Amino acid sequence: MNLLESIPRKDGFRMPAEFEPHSKCWMIWPERPDNWRNGAKPAQEAYSKVAEAISQFEKVTVCVSHEQYYNARKKLPPRVRVVEMSSNDAWMRDVGPTFVVNDEGIVRAVRWKFNAWGGLYFPWDKDELVALKVADMEEMDCYQAPMVLEGGSIDVDGEGTLITTEECLLNSNRNPQLSKEQIEQFLKDYLGVEKIIWLKRGVYNDETSGHVDNLCRFVRPGEAVLTWTEDRNDPQYEISRENYEILSKETDARRRRLKIHLIHQPSPIYVTEEEDSGVDFSERTHRRPAGYRLPASYVNFYFARGALIVPVFNDPKDKEALRKFREILPDRKIVPVYAREILLGGGAIHCITLQQPLGVRRC
Amino acid sequence: MNLLESIPRKDGFRMPAEFEPHSKCWMIWPERPDNWRNGAKPAQEAYSKVAEAISQFEKVTVCVSHEQYYNARKKLPPRVRVVEMSSNDAWMRDVGPTFVVNDEGIVRAVRWKFNAWGGLYFPWDKDELVALKVADMEEMDCYQAPMVLEGGSIDVDGEGTLITTEECLLNSNRNPQLSKEQIEQFLKDYLGVEKIIWLKRGVYNDETSGHVDNLCRFVRPGEAVLTWTEDRNDPQYEISRENYEILSKETDARRRRLKIHLIHQPSPIYVTEEEDSGVDFSERTHRRPAGYRLPASYVNFYFARGALIVPVFNDPKDKEALRKFREILPDRKIVPVYAREILLGGGAIHCITLQQPLGVRRC
Repeated sequence: MNLLESIPRKDGFRMPAEFEPHSKCWMIWPERPDNWRNGAKPAQEAYSKVAEAISQFEKVTVCVSHEQYYNARKKLPPRVRVVEMSSNDAWMRDVGPTFVVNDEGIVRAVRWKFNAWGGLYFPWDKDELVALKVADMEEMDCYQAPMVLEGGSIDVDGEGTLITTEECLLNSNRNPQLSKEQIEQFLKDYLGVEKIIWLKRGVYNDETSGHVDNLCRFVRPGEAVLTWTEDRNDPQYEISRENYEILSKETDARRRRLKIHLIHQPSPIYVTEEEDSGVDFSERTHRRPAGYRLPASYVNFYFARGALIVPVFNDPKDKEALRKFREILPDRKIVPVYAREILLGGGAIHCITLQQPLGVRRC
Repeated sequence: MNLLESIPRKDGFRMPAEFEPHSKCWMIWPERPDNWRNGAKPAQEAYSKVAEAISQFEKVTVCVSHEQYYNARKKLPPRVRVVEMSSNDAWMRDVGPTFVVNDEGIVRAVRWKFNAWGGLYFPWDKDELVALKVADMEEMDCYQAPMVLEGGSIDVDGEGTLITTEECLLNSNRNPQLSKEQIEQFLKDYLGVEKIIWLKRGVYNDETSGHVDNLCRFVRPGEAVLTWTEDRNDPQYEISRENYEILSKETDARRRRLKIHLIHQPSPIYVTEEEDSGVDFSERTHRRPAGYRLPASYVNFYFARGALIVPVFNDPKDKEALRKFREILPDRKIVPVYAREILLGGGAIHCITLQQPLGVRRC
């Protein structure tokens, strides 16, 4: 693995959309008992179900500590690859590399600076090496981007457009020394995009400072989904409307107006007393006490090859969301996976997965 | 990775000879200061030189702890892959899997039981998972062999013959519950060999209980090299002669008489006061105090693609050994690497490397 000092855009590399072909999916095995209740056993079961679902469509590699290696190996299906890799928690989307590709089919990695979502836990010494280790394992060269960023805070259409939120990327807990223009330039340089669409706030109570991957995602060039509610008393109401206003007026890098699909959120989900009581106390992690509202959203899905893996919450709204995804993506198999246990730890299916694109040679 | 309960021989698998084509070479990064002097820095430099030499001929993957990952990545050449993998020391030959192949080009792994060479250190909890993790990373199915064995204690010609020592395989510190016949049967079952040649004792003072890879190795079917001395006062004299007697009378699996090349050992090498003083004290490791005679041998070489990587010791005998190897293997590039720092930790180049064979389809 070469550590590259050049810039992906200048080298002809760009970040492909998640709906482009993958070579594999990366995940990290959850284990810390101060973030995951009951010794992380319910979370491990939930992650296993996600890995099992995705591995029906593409290869999956799960990274795990030495201590949990044998347990993870036994609990995951044989077709899932399990490799040792230390981390501080289990959010591959945010700690892994961003993969970029060129027209010759070469895939490279971009490693961002990482500060645990502006300091949600401490330390993050293991997480900040994950991107490098993934690139090394795959024998890929790796760029080092000079700003803090998590993969979940951006989404691209693969045709030059990036969508993100001001709440996250302009937050003083990320890159306070950089101006909006400097951040735009780094996104353009390291992801090969031309146009950045700035939404305002992310999903209500999303502790990531409003990652866009829980709020709004591209489903194909020119089309996106936005999490939504019709309940005027829900704090999400105003957030979604404000973002909808922006999206309905914006154009993408190819000057298309965007088609926006609204996906109604599940009913509000709150941490129960029982759930709270299973989490170890710690001074160094973000606590979600009983009664805490969790940022549930169907938009936190993962595109696998030929499929869409969608978080569901055993909620009456699940059905409507799945029906909508079937309409929007008629050529994909829509696969629901129950995600409450992942949500209890701070995210959902997109947050715990990371696609590695297939390098495709373009004539 | 499937954990297989069947037997390689019955599935049509066999262990290829090391001189057959490789897909890559595996190593482990040394770091424990109670085995390697001066915080393992001289050993890391020596291992890096071995990795660098081999990586000119074939791919090399070096496994390393999280703590040493960044250091190893910076110190090893970019063309070497570095992956996180916990271990108790740095002897991939002995803790890694034995790879077996079939005629369809499929490669599988065999995992042996491991007890740290009969208990040279404690614990060995990390080492005993290395074989599984290597197989998992390579997406190979893995057999579990029901006996203690290290890769360095056997050598095969790829045509049905295995060579080993009684000192090691029949030692009460390995498999005291198994008879010689049972051990032979497991070797036949798990390595696909038909004939076992039993040598007596390994190299003098070899703490592995006399691993054959420091004593005698196949260089092609029907031909082997044996470490040797003409000094009648050296304890190695009797050992080498006794083994030569056996070899000169034996036939291999194809009923060939063996051609034996004698490689004169280097002058005796002793641990110096300075070397000894750089090693951390520990109750749980094997100590090699000042004045301790080290089991130096040129036979502890590694076959890389088109090359032979040979340990040398800055000894007058180096030249003679290299000349002999050039004669015996005229089509290979003979590459010497200074190995005293590896020897100080208990082995040499073959001990710290492990070839992964290329699966080759045979019509």
